[in-house]
Amino acid sequence: MHNKKELRIGLIGRGLMARTHTNAYKRIGDFFPELEYRPVLKAVCARSEDKIKEFAEQWGYESYETDWKALIARDDIDAVDICTPNSTHAEIAIAAAEAGKMILCEKPLSRTVEEGQRMVDAINKAGVKNTVWYNYRRVPAVTLIKQIVDSGKLGRIFHYRANFLQDWTISPELPQGGEALWRLDAATAGSGVTGDLLAHCIDTAMWLNGGITDVSAMTETFIKERVHQESGKVQKVNIDDACVFHCHFANGSLGLFEATRYARGHKALYTLEINGEHASLRWDLHDMNHLEYFDHDDDSVVRGWRSILVTDSDQPYMKRWWIPGTSIGYEHSFIHQAADFFKSLEGNEPCAPTFKDALETQKVCEAVLESASSRAWKDTQVEW
Amino acid sequence: MHNKKELRIGLIGRGLMARTHTNAYKRIGDFFPELEYRPVLKAVCARSEDKIKEFAEQWGYESYETDWKALIARDDIDAVDICTPNSTHAEIAIAAAEAGKMILCEKPLSRTVEEGQRMVDAINKAGVKNTVWYNYRRVPAVTLIKQIVDSGKLGRIFHYRANFLQDWTISPELPQGGEALWRLDAATAGSGVTGDLLAHCIDTAMWLNGGITDVSAMTETFIKERVHQESGKVQKVNIDDACVFHCHFANGSLGLFEATRYARGHKALYTLEINGEHASLRWDLHDMNHLEYFDHDDDSVVRGWRSILVTDSDQPYMKRWWIPGTSIGYEHSFIHQAADFFKSLEGNEPCAPTFKDALETQKVCEAVLESASSRAWKDTQVEW
Amino acid sequence: MHNKKELRIGLIGRGLMARTHTNAYKRIGDFFPELEYRPVLKAVCARSEDKIKEFAEQWGYESYETDWKALIARDDIDAVDICTPNSTHAEIAIAAAEAGKMILCEKPLSRTVEEGQRMVDAINKAGVKNTVWYNYRRVPAVTLIKQIVDSGKLGRIFHYRANFLQDWTISPELPQGGEALWRLDAATAGSGVTGDLLAHCIDTAMWLNGGITDVSAMTETFIKERVHQESGKVQKVNIDDACVFHCHFANGSLGLFEATRYARGHKALYTLEINGEHASLRWDLHDMNHLEYFDHDDDSVVRGWRSILVTDSDQPYMKRWWIPGTSIGYEHSFIHQAADFFKSLEGNEPCAPTFKDALETQKVCEAVLESASSRAWKDTQVEW
Amino acid sequence: MHNKKELRIGLIGRGLMARTHTNAYKRIGDFFPELEYRPVLKAVCARSEDKIKEFAEQWGYESYETDWKALIARDDIDAVDICTPNSTHAEIAIAAAEAGKMILCEKPLSRTVEEGQRMVDAINKAGVKNTVWYNYRRVPAVTLIKQIVDSGKLGRIFHYRANFLQDWTISPELPQGGEALWRLDAATAGSGVTGDLLAHCIDTAMWLNGGITDVSAMTETFIKERVHQESGKVQKVNIDDACVFHCHFANGSLGLFEATRYARGHKALYTLEINGEHASLRWDLHDMNHLEYFDHDDDSVVRGWRSILVTDSDQPYMKRWWIPGTSIGYEHSFIHQAADFFKSLEGNEPCAPTFKDALETQKVCEAVLESASSRAWKDTQVEW
Repeated sequence: MHNKKELRIGLIGRGLMARTHTNAYKRIGDFFPELEYRPVLKAVCARSEDKIKEFAEQWGYESYETDWKALIARDDIDAVDICTPNSTHAEIAIAAAEAGKMILCEKPLSRTVEEGQRMVDAINKAGVKNTVWYNYRRVPAVTLIKQIVDSGKLGRIFHYRANFLQDWTISPELPQGGEALWRLDAATAGSGVTGDLLAHCIDTAMWLNGGITDVSAMTETFIKERVHQESGKVQKVNIDDACVFHCHFANGSLGLFEATRYARGHKALYTLEINGEHASLRWDLHDMNHLEYFDHDDDSVVRGWRSILVTDSDQPYMKRWWIPGTSIGYEHSFIHQAADFFKSLEGNEPCAPTFKDALETQKVCEAVLESASSRAWKDTQVEW
Repeated sequence: MHNKKELRIGLIGRGLMARTHTNAYKRIGDFFPELEYRPVLKAVCARSEDKIKEFAEQWGYESYETDWKALIARDDIDAVDICTPNSTHAEIAIAAAEAGKMILCEKPLSRTVEEGQRMVDAINKAGVKNTVWYNYRRVPAVTLIKQIVDSGKLGRIFHYRANFLQDWTISPELPQGGEALWRLDAATAGSGVTGDLLAHCIDTAMWLNGGITDVSAMTETFIKERVHQESGKVQKVNIDDACVFHCHFANGSLGLFEATRYARGHKALYTLEINGEHASLRWDLHDMNHLEYFDHDDDSVVRGWRSILVTDSDQPYMKRWWIPGTSIGYEHSFIHQAADFFKSLEGNEPCAPTFKDALETQKVCEAVLESASSRAWKDTQVEW
Repeated sequence: MHNKKELRIGLIGRGLMARTHTNAYKRIGDFFPELEYRPVLKAVCARSEDKIKEFAEQWGYESYETDWKALIARDDIDAVDICTPNSTHAEIAIAAAEAGKMILCEKPLSRTVEEGQRMVDAINKAGVKNTVWYNYRRVPAVTLIKQIVDSGKLGRIFHYRANFLQDWTISPELPQGGEALWRLDAATAGSGVTGDLLAHCIDTAMWLNGGITDVSAMTETFIKERVHQESGKVQKVNIDDACVFHCHFANGSLGLFEATRYARGHKALYTLEINGEHASLRWDLHDMNHLEYFDHDDDSVVRGWRSILVTDSDQPYMKRWWIPGTSIGYEHSFIHQAADFFKSLEGNEPCAPTFKDALETQKVCEAVLESASSRAWKDTQVEW
Repeated sequence: MHNKKELRIGLIGRGLMARTHTNAYKRIGDFFPELEYRPVLKAVCARSEDKIKEFAEQWGYESYETDWKALIARDDIDAVDICTPNSTHAEIAIAAAEAGKMILCEKPLSRTVEEGQRMVDAINKAGVKNTVWYNYRRVPAVTLIKQIVDSGKLGRIFHYRANFLQDWTISPELPQGGEALWRLDAATAGSGVTGDLLAHCIDTAMWLNGGITDVSAMTETFIKERVHQESGKVQKVNIDDACVFHCHFANGSLGLFEATRYARGHKALYTLEINGEHASLRWDLHDMNHLEYFDHDDDSVVRGWRSILVTDSDQPYMKRWWIPGTSIGYEHSFIHQAADFFKSLEGNEPCAPTFKDALETQKVCEAVLESASSRAWKDTQVEW
């Protein structure tokens, strides 16, 4: 371990994603011992000194900052990890790129395509390593879907459908805005479920099934007004509480997507299914170690959906972990992405999804929101 | 039994629905002994004398006809059951109404709203009993959903979603048209999955959640040409192989619907889910005796989706059958509808869904197809 | 139909099994039209004239009797169907055999091996057709298990396990005995869950996996006293409320069985699983149209338990019914057995399980009860 | 963090359990920041210097030893963690106790009751902290079962059943013995599935449902001979490949247990179910974040098994982790146990299961093996 090259991390933020990313950095050495680089938790940054000091102590960062510009200015930081609300991604990322830092940015890339394009331009100009934390690609069952799709096993694809169902904003008493609830404030988040949840579904979908060409969408804001935590006043809610859209993929298949925070009984039910000529696959996050697979080539009398428990050493990432039959959790998708990013440093290859990939997802999100507001189909301009 | 009043049935058709309806008539006496009327299988009708004679013998019809007009003209027929391809529903139903017969018509009501409106006008003018076989309303688990929704338990409704997934037309070798495959011929069927599958979803949805006001749809024909069994030639396929749409309900909730015959691995997977403020419900046809129910009022640490095995005597229709834990099947939904129709004769009440109800479903279907072809939202004109 | 040979049925009983058997007879003509014999519901018999008259009218029997000896004495009865409490099986069956009647007897065959042996002797002497209604063999998914096992696919068998879990006798307020609750009265039933539930599990097990050689069992009576409905007094409960046993099969595999009426939440959960060297199978009655199948020969990364929806026309019995994806229910297992019995009349073959087969099940049941009371292993003396 | 008291760990072993325990120590600081003690990975020990050096580097141990006696002799070790094969537990633990070290011992405690009793005597004499890694108690869903049972919600308990099904030793080509396969060598392991798998089931069972009083068991060795990796010769296999037993609990309920490594299709399927008068609970390791719960007090028409996704902050341990709907894995059960052990240091309370608790499990295991070999019921002598 002592011969490893160091990659010094400066992480901005102290919320849920700051925790999942930090945990990922702390574990890759144990589980991916062959990596040539090792992370050093150099500094973490947030505006509240009390809170970021506590965070740094708990998680073992060597130092902390209260101004992200100071963090970026430090010479002892190689990579900046952006875990802040969406409204700050562009400014921080562009500054970090200009400072020559590698960037690991939490999803969604940006609030808008315009912001995202500027971010892509900045990293292109700077030539810095970059990745966006669309972590679900690295759930082993989802990675296995990718392998099966790429094998050609499915044949022609007819359908792709995904939804992401939650229920945590149903109460009208829930306020909007502020540190904990910025996801309900459009100015900070950019959008509601479209950027928060559908962006995940779209990233996975285009990775698995290619570009989305045009979309027809509908959004709804069920609770029209909520107290804003910053003003203390009842204000109009500007985010989309729910969003559904259908679309065409470039390969001729049909897509159907839905996200909502008003589906009582579902906590984080990200579900996807792909139907091909010869086989189908489906998966959901509430049962994340299982993959459902239907193979029409099986003998007809014993043909059925297979429930594959993805815990064997010949399945993606699983040789890193325990023994067949024992499962891993949500956090492991981040560990896998961190490991893949570190691996990518050795070979000078990009670590997908890059900022460019994430910008394509942003284009779909924006087309979806425009389609909903105009009640018309929209082309996405996606390059995939 | 011998004191019961007779209802003399004349059934037109000899396919799958002729069998499910005939089976229903033959069983209601055993399982609904309190009914005042009993069915008499007076006559069955199809063009092929050999085949209809065999059908009549197998199923116990007293006689057969080879011309539906002859059947309608008979004085010893009280009710006409229409189990023929969609293209013939209007003509037969209108003639039967004019002859003063009660009518039980297989779904969908018609190919078009125009046809359906003429059928409704005819039965209104004649004042005859009528019903349309949207059988899934009478699956006990689905009837139980209706009871729970009507109790107000769900509170404000946010989402309704349904799909109907099949995979039987994926092979390009499958021809279109003819006796067995008229569902692939738009001239006979009116449409593809929209009238065949989505019509079921729409009927249940409006029954449970009220009227659909406007729709935005997309259709696709994956296999563009197939041999036509009548001409023997390769011809353009005119039906929709797949159809998805989103919509608004009059109560402010959002709807999402999908049907396809290209979802590999699904045979007849009709799935529906409704999300309300306080509770959610979901059901699917492949597991038709179970109802999934989530009640947010349960204590939080033990809150979860309940899998309700709908086989107890206090659940809809189940006191008619066996013992708790023992299931019933697809055919029972038809038996229940037949029993409800016979019961409705006693009280002079309509037996829903009536022709009028089914016309509203037709309006949604037609708006869906128009939306898809025009790539624009359409109002449905539904009166619910 | 009019050219069919008649088989005139005399059925004794008017409870649940009288209904399932009668329903079976009434439907085989519609769904198995090729049968050379057709049932005629000649007479039904029970002690209460009011009730049996009503039953006969509801179900369409031509006549009724109030004394089973009178029924057996009738010349116009070809086959006697015994649906009475267990304590009467032996006397009725022996008399029926002596009268030269075919016999269809509800399970279990008898209360004891001694009774069962006399019944077997009687039918052997009389040379009459016979069968016992262990209906679960004819659930299509279970029949499919038999086909897969017989194909040799599983290789060497290691484990067979089955349980039958109910919860309907948990309340101490429930009385014992009388017409409705004779299953709680050992004098009438012979035993509790052993004869009622485990007998089903044992019949299926030996059919699928061969003879059981020796058993070690434990029984329990949780509620020690209940009001007896005949005496009106609190009396000791003599039945086994629960019974578990493990055993060896002749093929060297291990068996594990459990039945109870005290498993809160389970209505009629008959579950079985068989583990072989190359494949495993499992099934349960609450989801009776699905079969779970694991094939170790599948490619390792996509290997998993398959959920086979047994509704296709190439799966056992299913070409008789509707379309792929649409399920059948509990009652169909009886219809299939009735059809198989009628078919067996054409070829002069036995219709398994015969009285002889059912006697072997009785031997296991008796060994189980003896093992439990003696707290020692018992050999079964099964000939299989 | 820097003000925390140190607990200096010396871990013996370098296999799977060495990894799960080490991972646990490394994570409790991040997720249980309030703990007063923090682990210091002082030394790790195994016979192969090359391998233990590599292990120490990968996992961050400060030093390594190749002789466990040297490790125990070190003054800078506070607690010894025993992750070696079963045959060494007693000797190491007794020496560690005599050296005044705290002991965390991997399960099962010992090969025999005699060994285990000496271990208990030693820790009692030394008065040292001790725990045994029966990790499944700390799966949140299992801990939640304990809370529900302790609340009295279930009422009188009737049934407890558990099994642990694997399939990894089916091939006769698999050798026995040696470093990787000592679990197949009775001299090292003590027993086969009884100590390896049933011990887990028994520990959980007595924790949830109280003491087991007497048992009746059956074992089997399906593959009689295997090459031994140490001798290179074909030798008799002495372990139990499969073991089933039924038993009584002190509370009057019935128990049914099964473990095997020959259940094709199951990797690590630990399943448990408890049936009470008013409610039932079940859980399995392949779906470890879900708990199934049936509450008979629910309204009858909507009563059903609830599938509780145990990921909310008011459920055991889950406030430590991510957000509702996102799961944790196998390794977290060890993290929870490590955290509870460290917490127990603060209050001077025992950390269950202690050596004494684990000895009671050992008594049941031994009674099971004796029952199987003698084909007779055995009393367990458990004190619970």
